[in-house]
Amino acid sequence: MGINRFFQIFLPKESKFFPLLKGQTEDLIKAADLLITFVHTSDHDKRKIIYSEIKQVETHCDKLTDQIFDELNKTFITPFDREDIHALASQIDDVLDMINASAKRIILYKPEELSQSMRKMADYIKEGVICIEKAIDELDKLKRNPKEVRIQCTKLHEIENSADDVYENFIIALFENEKNAIELVKQVEIIQLLENTTDKAYRIADVLKTIIVKYA
Amino acid sequence: MGINRFFQIFLPKESKFFPLLKGQTEDLIKAADLLITFVHTSDHDKRKIIYSEIKQVETHCDKLTDQIFDELNKTFITPFDREDIHALASQIDDVLDMINASAKRIILYKPEELSQSMRKMADYIKEGVICIEKAIDELDKLKRNPKEVRIQCTKLHEIENSADDVYENFIIALFENEKNAIELVKQVEIIQLLENTTDKAYRIADVLKTIIVKYA
Amino acid sequence: MGINRFFQIFLPKESKFFPLLKGQTEDLIKAADLLITFVHTSDHDKRKIIYSEIKQVETHCDKLTDQIFDELNKTFITPFDREDIHALASQIDDVLDMINASAKRIILYKPEELSQSMRKMADYIKEGVICIEKAIDELDKLKRNPKEVRIQCTKLHEIENSADDVYENFIIALFENEKNAIELVKQVEIIQLLENTTDKAYRIADVLKTIIVKYA
Repeated sequence: MGINRFFQIFLPKESKFFPLLKGQTEDLIKAADLLITFVHTSDHDKRKIIYSEIKQVETHCDKLTDQIFDELNKTFITPFDREDIHALASQIDDVLDMINASAKRIILYKPEELSQSMRKMADYIKEGVICIEKAIDELDKLKRNPKEVRIQCTKLHEIENSADDVYENFIIALFENEKNAIELVKQVEIIQLLENTTDKAYRIADVLKTIIVKYA
Repeated sequence: MGINRFFQIFLPKESKFFPLLKGQTEDLIKAADLLITFVHTSDHDKRKIIYSEIKQVETHCDKLTDQIFDELNKTFITPFDREDIHALASQIDDVLDMINASAKRIILYKPEELSQSMRKMADYIKEGVICIEKAIDELDKLKRNPKEVRIQCTKLHEIENSADDVYENFIIALFENEKNAIELVKQVEIIQLLENTTDKAYRIADVLKTIIVKYA
Repeated sequence: MGINRFFQIFLPKESKFFPLLKGQTEDLIKAADLLITFVHTSDHDKRKIIYSEIKQVETHCDKLTDQIFDELNKTFITPFDREDIHALASQIDDVLDMINASAKRIILYKPEELSQSMRKMADYIKEGVICIEKAIDELDKLKRNPKEVRIQCTKLHEIENSADDVYENFIIALFENEKNAIELVKQVEIIQLLENTTDKAYRIADVLKTIIVKYA
């Protein structure tokens, strides 16, 4: 138990962190929805437009993240341990960065086609992002009822496992069938980023579990 | 000197962390041994079986790591600074993740052959893992005798340098001789993961050195 | 406000950290200058000599970084929060590691040619490193005048954006024009490391901004 948690028992909590984290998850949902539209669009110029929208959401979330960090540095008593709020905010931001990076890589590499596996990955990213949103929504009720947050952590784990299966099967088939080395490189690097995005989403479960152990 | 170290002078220490860390290093040794068998096996189906064993060890170590994190969050006085135990546990887990990822990549990419350099890398990983095990074994005696832990840190550094030389020579030769681009990509990505594994092992020396400076 | 900042109000500060950080930035400048010479050298053997000089600077900076970490672990009151000095030192070291890794990759991969974009990247790395040096120089005056550090943070952001544009245009052109898959892989991996280096330099702005919020 850190010194912060000792004071938290006696002093009123600042609640400005919850709306800011909620703002971040709203951006995450927007970006995940845009990514789904993006991977279902075959026209390169239309994709460029959607990518620029993802980029805008990412820039907006960056500002929220900066705001959270500034508040953390200026606030004496935080509702959870400072480092855990910092980890949550920065890892939510990381997921959005990865969504943005995935779309950007597709724009830059211009692969001949986006596979069914890539579209499936975008779906998993959306599912993971919904879990994160639900968990953040429950965070201020955590001490009374940690069950809902625990459920979302389990779901995030299941999604990561499913995404991993899609990734593995895609890579095995790709190396067996793709004879064009440049196309293969493009496909490997794109699916890797998408898979890393689901992995980053899952990592938020670790922060959530830390908070549950400390507070619930 | 943090507030934790101040209290550590007066209060009895919880010793449950040492057996848990020791459990992690036992898993590391198992996984490193399996990796050596794996890279000496040429049959793909046999490799798959060994990979599934590595995966099991990795899952077991994940649970130990979670247990350490939970204990850290519930324990007021820790034998070393909380953040250093956290870093040790998570970095030991990282090394095991990398061993698992290396084997998995070989299963997915199915390269035409595994080179002598890759087998050498697996040996270096085992050597590094032995150093980590020895250092963890000595950790509870650190205050009386930090010499043994220092020796293991030096060895980890030497192993990382040797692994780096093997990596460099392999890459130079590969780019000079391999004309099949897809095979080259496979080989580069596999050796990179193996080299990153020795690098991750070496990073544990940084945490150990931090602990020595603070406590020995 | 942490316990450290509470004591900082009453107690004299240790100032040994500023000269050590300054030593790190001097190494950074040396390495960035060597990288510029390196990417303007077409002879492989001459490049090898310059690379070994970069490696020497990197080893020197490693020692300074270790010294900073040791001092942090032994010093009770630090001029800024311990974790921020740690982050600054380790991230400056990371930038130098990335400069070293970029040069090393070019030596190992021996690409047919280094592009104009790569030379431009080396210039941006140098510009970023100058910002870092200026910001570190101003750090001990931060409480009186945070303006100069803020200016360098803004510049680091601009440089990162420009480097990103160069990277994007290079990759688009490369995938459109390069038909040799092995050469393409080399070029992609080299420009990625160079771009990551400017990104790492920019990340130091985050640490600087944290320090400004806390202390200025």
